[in-house]
Amino acid sequence: MAIPASLRNDLADVPLLEDAGSLRMRSRDFFWFSPILKETLEDKRAEIVAVPRHKADVMRVAAACAKHRVPLTVRGGGTGNYGQAVPLKGGVVLDMGKLDQVIWQRPGAGRFGAGARMLEIDRALAPAGHELRFHPSTRQHATIGGFVAGGAAGAGSCTWGQISDPGAVLAVEVVTVEEQPRVIELTGRDVLRVMHAYGVNGIITEVEVPLAPSHPWCERIAIFPTLSAAAHFAHTFTECDGIAKKLVTVHDPQVVPYLRRLAPYAESETAQPPAMVIVMVSEPQADACELIVAEHGGKVTFRRNAEDARKVAFLETSGLQPLYEFTWNHTTLHAIRIDPTITYLQLRFPPANNLELVDWVAERFRDEVLLHLEFQRRFGKVTCSSLPLVRYTTPERLDAIMAELDAKGVAVSNPHTYVLDNAGWKRVDAPQAEFKRLADPHGLMNPGKLAHWQTEQMKAIA
Amino acid sequence: MAIPASLRNDLADVPLLEDAGSLRMRSRDFFWFSPILKETLEDKRAEIVAVPRHKADVMRVAAACAKHRVPLTVRGGGTGNYGQAVPLKGGVVLDMGKLDQVIWQRPGAGRFGAGARMLEIDRALAPAGHELRFHPSTRQHATIGGFVAGGAAGAGSCTWGQISDPGAVLAVEVVTVEEQPRVIELTGRDVLRVMHAYGVNGIITEVEVPLAPSHPWCERIAIFPTLSAAAHFAHTFTECDGIAKKLVTVHDPQVVPYLRRLAPYAESETAQPPAMVIVMVSEPQADACELIVAEHGGKVTFRRNAEDARKVAFLETSGLQPLYEFTWNHTTLHAIRIDPTITYLQLRFPPANNLELVDWVAERFRDEVLLHLEFQRRFGKVTCSSLPLVRYTTPERLDAIMAELDAKGVAVSNPHTYVLDNAGWKRVDAPQAEFKRLADPHGLMNPGKLAHWQTEQMKAIA
Repeated sequence: MAIPASLRNDLADVPLLEDAGSLRMRSRDFFWFSPILKETLEDKRAEIVAVPRHKADVMRVAAACAKHRVPLTVRGGGTGNYGQAVPLKGGVVLDMGKLDQVIWQRPGAGRFGAGARMLEIDRALAPAGHELRFHPSTRQHATIGGFVAGGAAGAGSCTWGQISDPGAVLAVEVVTVEEQPRVIELTGRDVLRVMHAYGVNGIITEVEVPLAPSHPWCERIAIFPTLSAAAHFAHTFTECDGIAKKLVTVHDPQVVPYLRRLAPYAESETAQPPAMVIVMVSEPQADACELIVAEHGGKVTFRRNAEDARKVAFLETSGLQPLYEFTWNHTTLHAIRIDPTITYLQLRFPPANNLELVDWVAERFRDEVLLHLEFQRRFGKVTCSSLPLVRYTTPERLDAIMAELDAKGVAVSNPHTYVLDNAGWKRVDAPQAEFKRLADPHGLMNPGKLAHWQTEQMKAIA
Repeated sequence: MAIPASLRNDLADVPLLEDAGSLRMRSRDFFWFSPILKETLEDKRAEIVAVPRHKADVMRVAAACAKHRVPLTVRGGGTGNYGQAVPLKGGVVLDMGKLDQVIWQRPGAGRFGAGARMLEIDRALAPAGHELRFHPSTRQHATIGGFVAGGAAGAGSCTWGQISDPGAVLAVEVVTVEEQPRVIELTGRDVLRVMHAYGVNGIITEVEVPLAPSHPWCERIAIFPTLSAAAHFAHTFTECDGIAKKLVTVHDPQVVPYLRRLAPYAESETAQPPAMVIVMVSEPQADACELIVAEHGGKVTFRRNAEDARKVAFLETSGLQPLYEFTWNHTTLHAIRIDPTITYLQLRFPPANNLELVDWVAERFRDEVLLHLEFQRRFGKVTCSSLPLVRYTTPERLDAIMAELDAKGVAVSNPHTYVLDNAGWKRVDAPQAEFKRLADPHGLMNPGKLAHWQTEQMKAIA
């Protein structure tokens, strides 16, 4: 659709971007990790990008889109993997990047503009000795609003669980897409209405989260003879309640070669390539960690102290990037750069027998599904999830792998769909859909993202 | 035995106490919670109390005791319950209270004189935003050295596990009892050599522990219709990885009347007396906690904000004492003051079926064993331990109860023995006994405390 001149008029002095380069760049995220999404989403484009300076600008854009019935797609850092930020039906992309204030912080909690980048938040909190509990591997670019709308876990999950856990988000402020936009404050369980809804049921403008007092996180890499040995270490280590930790990642020996800059730390005395574990641990407890490494037959090959790790993360110095950029879905990025035929899946292992199932997957899909494991707490128990690399052949084969994993009891989330209600555990449940009726009554927020809801609405309108 | 004049001479200017009042008071701890220990330990007395001002004094006392073969018993805050600080064979009691320095602190760790009281340590750390991870309910009087030598868990265990977990103590400095005392630094797993050894294998002079960055801990009391409902809440709440918490205690309805100052917060609308839960939670997450209380059919009856809770704990203001003084073994203290026939046990419930076993104990020993539950993490899983009140009749009945609990799979530690190697899970394992040979070659450290070891030594000497 073409943008009506009257819409442009109603946007008044809200900063806009309309050049082809900006339209392309701000209509994309990391959907291209999926060969299937790549084909579908590659050519989707916004017709205009609005870059609000403050909440008043957001409300002006919301009102104008509602009045002119123009699709509106909210964009954070564009670090998602399912086309969360891709405008399926054109229209306006709302780039939240300028709403990046620390609104307030006090011991144990903080409130931030939705567009604040997570690294910048941590930089602002550092003098007070606080930090965000979680961040994705894309900490540098991801925004807090985008993480709440489209993220789940990350560094920090080995201690704090998931972003959707009780108490993990204290409040979210949402602007509705109506002719007269309202500002709605969601607290308590109500925050779940907009969490992981990919921004289709209201414009998240502010996020209030509990903070973690920060530990001095140092980094370690350890190698182990096998994936199984590495996974056993990682599980035991994560279960050590008394060791403060931020990240515990395990890479299968077949994944390690894709992490080129880590090659010097993967040299094993044996002919077999080793499995690798990446850890962020409170500096005074690094020795306790290394003791457990040794007890599991591992060897520490890389050590970076907390101050140096902080400096590279905060871009105050050059050198090997922070190790969390070799974990979670950054792993896929490194692998695709080397081998563009690679894609990935999303798995969650049940706590009761996660290590057995890890062994089973590694054996069953050897050379095809290459595991890396992210250890985390889930409702008081330790388990792991995985975003395994997959040597991709056909969509049918991908479906067959997912079906077999699912049948065996490994929870699979399909990252190869842009439709929210198709995506495994990120399904839309009642409060999210219900809230969409209230916050987006005209169904303008990235139409097409919610297949089922769209049909329902069409019926209602017809 | 009488103290030889030559020993006194060798002690030079080390401050000594010899009046009857001091000798009595510094020869006691809270062993009288046990009717059995009370009978045995009541009349045990030191002949002299040494109060070293610094490490040089400690070494002087150690050397003198070794030279003259006089028994030496180390004393911290005297808050133990098994006669840890009671000199079984007289001699010298070494009161460590003046070795109370913060030796250093840095982000994530601190090192303290063994005699530093835990409350004072937290007071000193507060400006930097740090605190000890654990403290017993006797935080005000307990010393860090005594806690390491004779304690196990406490407030903080719902997050950090036990003091004996990997990494929970970074280093311990020990002075040996020899004519030429040595100073030995134990690190890594070696710290286990002196942990929970009741001070019989070397004089702990310094302790280095990881610190927790502190949250603003507010307090809540909630009541529930039944013990079972309260326990289910407490388990679920402790499993909420995303809610920062310091204390989760459950009191059976029959325990509540013994906590007199909490009576106003136990008023239920029903005729049945309620079960009570005491919680310390990070202030910004108190609402998340209250939501879970409500979902479990509970009702919050008391709220104190973090600043007020801190002030009463730090003795900056009067008012209801900190709620942790109504938990762990303080519960027994409150109960014994009202009913001197009461004693207690020490139970640990296995994580797999702790809630079932709690119900079973409550049903099986109704009116005789009154549970209060301390929820904690143990090796990555949530479970509870208990120091239940017991309506005491005879030693035989106490043994029968312990045997039945043990047979059912509830781990029992017998707190009614002063002999270290009899005391259930606090058994002496190899590294502790081995270290005694090295640190106390003449067997002078509170002889009688280690029954088995004493016999072995006698054989060796004979």
